[in-house]
Amino acid sequence: MKRDVNEFQIAKALDIAANNPYHGTQEHMDGQSQAEQGDYTRSLKHANYLVTETNAQTTDWSSAYQYPPYDGQLRLDVYTHLSSGANMVEYWHWASIPSGQETYWKGVLSHDLEPNRAYAEVSRTAHELQKIGPKLVNLKIKNDVAILYSVDSANALDYMPFALAPAAQWEMGKPVATYSTVVHQLHKAFYDANVGVDFVFPEAADFSSYKLIVVPPLYIANDAILQKLSDYVKGGGHVLMTFKSGFANEDSAVRAVRAPGPLREVAGFNYQEFSNLEKALPLKGDPFKVGEDNKVMYWAEFLQLEHAKPLASYDHPFFGRWPAITRNQFGAGTLTYEGTFLSDPLQHAVVLDVLRDARVDGVKQSLPAQVREKSGVNGAGKTLHYFLNYSGTAQSFIYNQGPGIDLLSGRPVSNAKRVELGPWDLAIVEEQ
Amino acid sequence: MKRDVNEFQIAKALDIAANNPYHGTQEHMDGQSQAEQGDYTRSLKHANYLVTETNAQTTDWSSAYQYPPYDGQLRLDVYTHLSSGANMVEYWHWASIPSGQETYWKGVLSHDLEPNRAYAEVSRTAHELQKIGPKLVNLKIKNDVAILYSVDSANALDYMPFALAPAAQWEMGKPVATYSTVVHQLHKAFYDANVGVDFVFPEAADFSSYKLIVVPPLYIANDAILQKLSDYVKGGGHVLMTFKSGFANEDSAVRAVRAPGPLREVAGFNYQEFSNLEKALPLKGDPFKVGEDNKVMYWAEFLQLEHAKPLASYDHPFFGRWPAITRNQFGAGTLTYEGTFLSDPLQHAVVLDVLRDARVDGVKQSLPAQVREKSGVNGAGKTLHYFLNYSGTAQSFIYNQGPGIDLLSGRPVSNAKRVELGPWDLAIVEEQ
Amino acid sequence: MKRDVNEFQIAKALDIAANNPYHGTQEHMDGQSQAEQGDYTRSLKHANYLVTETNAQTTDWSSAYQYPPYDGQLRLDVYTHLSSGANMVEYWHWASIPSGQETYWKGVLSHDLEPNRAYAEVSRTAHELQKIGPKLVNLKIKNDVAILYSVDSANALDYMPFALAPAAQWEMGKPVATYSTVVHQLHKAFYDANVGVDFVFPEAADFSSYKLIVVPPLYIANDAILQKLSDYVKGGGHVLMTFKSGFANEDSAVRAVRAPGPLREVAGFNYQEFSNLEKALPLKGDPFKVGEDNKVMYWAEFLQLEHAKPLASYDHPFFGRWPAITRNQFGAGTLTYEGTFLSDPLQHAVVLDVLRDARVDGVKQSLPAQVREKSGVNGAGKTLHYFLNYSGTAQSFIYNQGPGIDLLSGRPVSNAKRVELGPWDLAIVEEQ
Repeated sequence: MKRDVNEFQIAKALDIAANNPYHGTQEHMDGQSQAEQGDYTRSLKHANYLVTETNAQTTDWSSAYQYPPYDGQLRLDVYTHLSSGANMVEYWHWASIPSGQETYWKGVLSHDLEPNRAYAEVSRTAHELQKIGPKLVNLKIKNDVAILYSVDSANALDYMPFALAPAAQWEMGKPVATYSTVVHQLHKAFYDANVGVDFVFPEAADFSSYKLIVVPPLYIANDAILQKLSDYVKGGGHVLMTFKSGFANEDSAVRAVRAPGPLREVAGFNYQEFSNLEKALPLKGDPFKVGEDNKVMYWAEFLQLEHAKPLASYDHPFFGRWPAITRNQFGAGTLTYEGTFLSDPLQHAVVLDVLRDARVDGVKQSLPAQVREKSGVNGAGKTLHYFLNYSGTAQSFIYNQGPGIDLLSGRPVSNAKRVELGPWDLAIVEEQ
Repeated sequence: MKRDVNEFQIAKALDIAANNPYHGTQEHMDGQSQAEQGDYTRSLKHANYLVTETNAQTTDWSSAYQYPPYDGQLRLDVYTHLSSGANMVEYWHWASIPSGQETYWKGVLSHDLEPNRAYAEVSRTAHELQKIGPKLVNLKIKNDVAILYSVDSANALDYMPFALAPAAQWEMGKPVATYSTVVHQLHKAFYDANVGVDFVFPEAADFSSYKLIVVPPLYIANDAILQKLSDYVKGGGHVLMTFKSGFANEDSAVRAVRAPGPLREVAGFNYQEFSNLEKALPLKGDPFKVGEDNKVMYWAEFLQLEHAKPLASYDHPFFGRWPAITRNQFGAGTLTYEGTFLSDPLQHAVVLDVLRDARVDGVKQSLPAQVREKSGVNGAGKTLHYFLNYSGTAQSFIYNQGPGIDLLSGRPVSNAKRVELGPWDLAIVEEQ
Repeated sequence: MKRDVNEFQIAKALDIAANNPYHGTQEHMDGQSQAEQGDYTRSLKHANYLVTETNAQTTDWSSAYQYPPYDGQLRLDVYTHLSSGANMVEYWHWASIPSGQETYWKGVLSHDLEPNRAYAEVSRTAHELQKIGPKLVNLKIKNDVAILYSVDSANALDYMPFALAPAAQWEMGKPVATYSTVVHQLHKAFYDANVGVDFVFPEAADFSSYKLIVVPPLYIANDAILQKLSDYVKGGGHVLMTFKSGFANEDSAVRAVRAPGPLREVAGFNYQEFSNLEKALPLKGDPFKVGEDNKVMYWAEFLQLEHAKPLASYDHPFFGRWPAITRNQFGAGTLTYEGTFLSDPLQHAVVLDVLRDARVDGVKQSLPAQVREKSGVNGAGKTLHYFLNYSGTAQSFIYNQGPGIDLLSGRPVSNAKRVELGPWDLAIVEEQ
């Protein structure tokens, strides 16, 4: 997810897409970053992909950000990548380099070139894969939800950011939220709901197989993609769209009509004004029941409703006259619109509401908060369910899918049976 | 009020002075910034001036500092400028630009080029001015107080600042107070007291028509201007002077005599030492009764009194032996000196004390804290009183000037009668 | 203690070493910085040295960090330098410069060139020295403890720092602790215990006259110096060593064996892994009884014990399995090792423990916390005891050394007698 290249266009020239998804470890490994990178890379060619580099012992260009994984995290990480559709997990690099910039970007082995804790865990995982790998590769993943990713919008919003820290006059502060922040927040909301997502790209968007299209700020868009979104809703699709979408055309020129330009009809409102928010504001009456997290920030469009219905408005004497979140029935579908930046818990609540509205079969399992389920169909046509425990404490849950075998333990797992997961451990159930 | 040019000298080549006074909006519009810029610009040529740019919808070179005015603020802003002596208020620009650096520096119209909230308010104001404008232009303003503005001192103190944030060794922190901070603080203290001020410039200072000359840190000064200040006090004038005045000559060389150099006699003290203050200090006994705001900071001169009387001293075992604020009777006048940087409320209290000392007729009206009064004489020789409500709540007060007509409503206003002002609204009383 | 030169090598070309030890004043003068610089400079040539510049009135390249000394600090500072072995204290400069970068780097006189508070104190001190100076110069100082200072390690750890503030991805934060931080912390721990230290240098290390060698992170080291340390312990010496020692060779290449490389036997452990610490961690059970200061930070090596005994371990589910501080008996001596960065009070407690272990005669006097004792032998072969009060309040203590004369007051001082010290004052007892 780089700014300086259009990876979707580049991927056309590749046989197999690959990624180097580095991520947080120790207390910062919840699998979401790997899933976001994995979903994105898999979507570039609608195919399995390779992980050509990822965290071995430690990373970074100094000795100040060294965070070797806790016991179990290296193994869990490999299965995390496989559960997103990776067909390989490779490390940069085998042994650590004795000098230079990457002295502390450590491999599986330390500088002493001897077996160690990391080696033991990689070796254990490799021996497991030797046995069960053929049942895991070529996982086919079919999702109901897709995120429309626009690298042009990401770039344009880097030049005209919507959320900067306060700064001295005539200076610009550092970004506190960007296009990527919204993408990440949206992806995480679905991830936490155990709903898998694909990415789609404006250059070749096909919405037909999805129940819900999620639109991070589509600031840069030609008329064609906006028309496609409109037609998709009219035909029964559902869209969750965020602020600034439709504002500028493909040349980064603001459209000379009321915002959101060609989306005005499908969105059911127009706006002529917007404001940054100096402080976070609550939504009137806490409509999504998130308590102290009931707050929005950074940006507020002054939505003038035409056909849309308000879902939430600002609790403020001036901004309060314009709705903050709206939903519009258009043809057979709906478009839900966020005219402001939501707190993470609020975004999570709105996503759950949109999933219900779009009749996406959301929560597959009643799972502990730290356990994620990810599913797909393997090369043999059998359904796999990964249950991944991203925590340092043991977890358990009642399995409610079809009867199968836990490939790692070799034990049968039947419906309504309790499954136990150790710290940073997992089960992979292959339905029989 | 730029550093890189001497605007007083430049103004000689102009027929009419103009300014582009951008300012805070929403919760940050109290009219003070406009008054400070207006007083300064009017003083450049002792004449009415033009506002050639000011806030329309929103400003800034990104989408991150967009704060469109609340209802009423655009109209109130126009009258704010007129009440300082502006003869025109013009916007950069009519319509917003669709691309480039100033995409979000919005005009009266948005990118959609349609009428909107801003347009409606500008149009209302313009129609009012069509009717009453001839009674408002060419306002003559006569003040008893003037601030001596030295661009050379501002520049020199940028090179040798007196208040920087803590920094690593051999690094310099960011400025936390500058020459402009003191100018602004002093101007605001008079503004909040409803006492109008002019600016005067060292290059052609005529103090004869003023009761009080206010001197921000006059760090750079030739002997002549210091002699003028001294003579002014001797002849019965009053001066409020701040730290570092008289320290360096016109070549930025520190004078080779005890500070404050040629001001020693009129000031009634000398000093050989000074210290920055690591932490804010209280004044002993809270002499100006400002409670928790009784604190000074950044800088302390070790004033050794000769004839001056101490008004306040530091509550500190070491610094406590030197006074912080002094007053010296010299000839028929007085010089009040601040050897340290005061908190805003403390500065406000000292200014009120100096106004009493200088017998300046301070508070014209008993007004609510958010209402400002500004007065002048119009082209027809009639006195105008602007009453401007810089708040989002209605305000009222008892009018105590001569009977007149509120030009906006057309209603008569008589002495001792209550005047009501809506949120961000105003009255303009023309005495009959 | 510069990074860009090897001062020990340079000192060989000098007849007499000199230093310009600028330091904190007002509330920040405890004499430690002067002692650290003095111990270092004296150690360069094992001889008395010159102070060629130090704080007169104020320092710095702006008017924002001006902190003239409190009454008594200028005088106390001179004796502080002498008590570390200085044979001269000179100021940059006599009078202050009227313009340019160092306008505010003030001399003994201010810009007015007249006598002042600083001059009076310098003059008093100079007149004292005229009388008693011959009894103070050429002070010979004999210490039991030495700090091994490695400029190569300091440089290398600037390139691969172990403690940076959090930063945005792909950026590096500012250092929050460096090699110098550890040197300073260790020196201060001995200073606060009234135990004098020398410095020794890897280029010509002779440990034979010391009971204890203190080793700040010896990150860069050739095999020879590591062997010397090992032999020293084997022969009965004591070493207090900190993290990262022995990690890289003299070419800044990480050794291709388990850390700490050639030190493995003397240290009694090896390690293959390490981690930065995102947050400070407590040591399990507060083994050094320092209460709320029982915390370590920044860095943790995963010490795998072979012969060493653990003195402390981390109170953490993951890091807890590896000891944080160890001690190894090797031959006739011991090596105490800190695998992590300690809080200042924890370092102080560990140093006291190591002093007991090494049988260094630690606390000479029971002294108030703000009073330091420093001792040596003067040119006449008599023992001098400096008692220096680094505080603004009077202090007293019971003298417990041999009977002598207080050179400043001329009064006899006998054992078990109470000595009184004024604020920022001192006594110099010459044993008879």
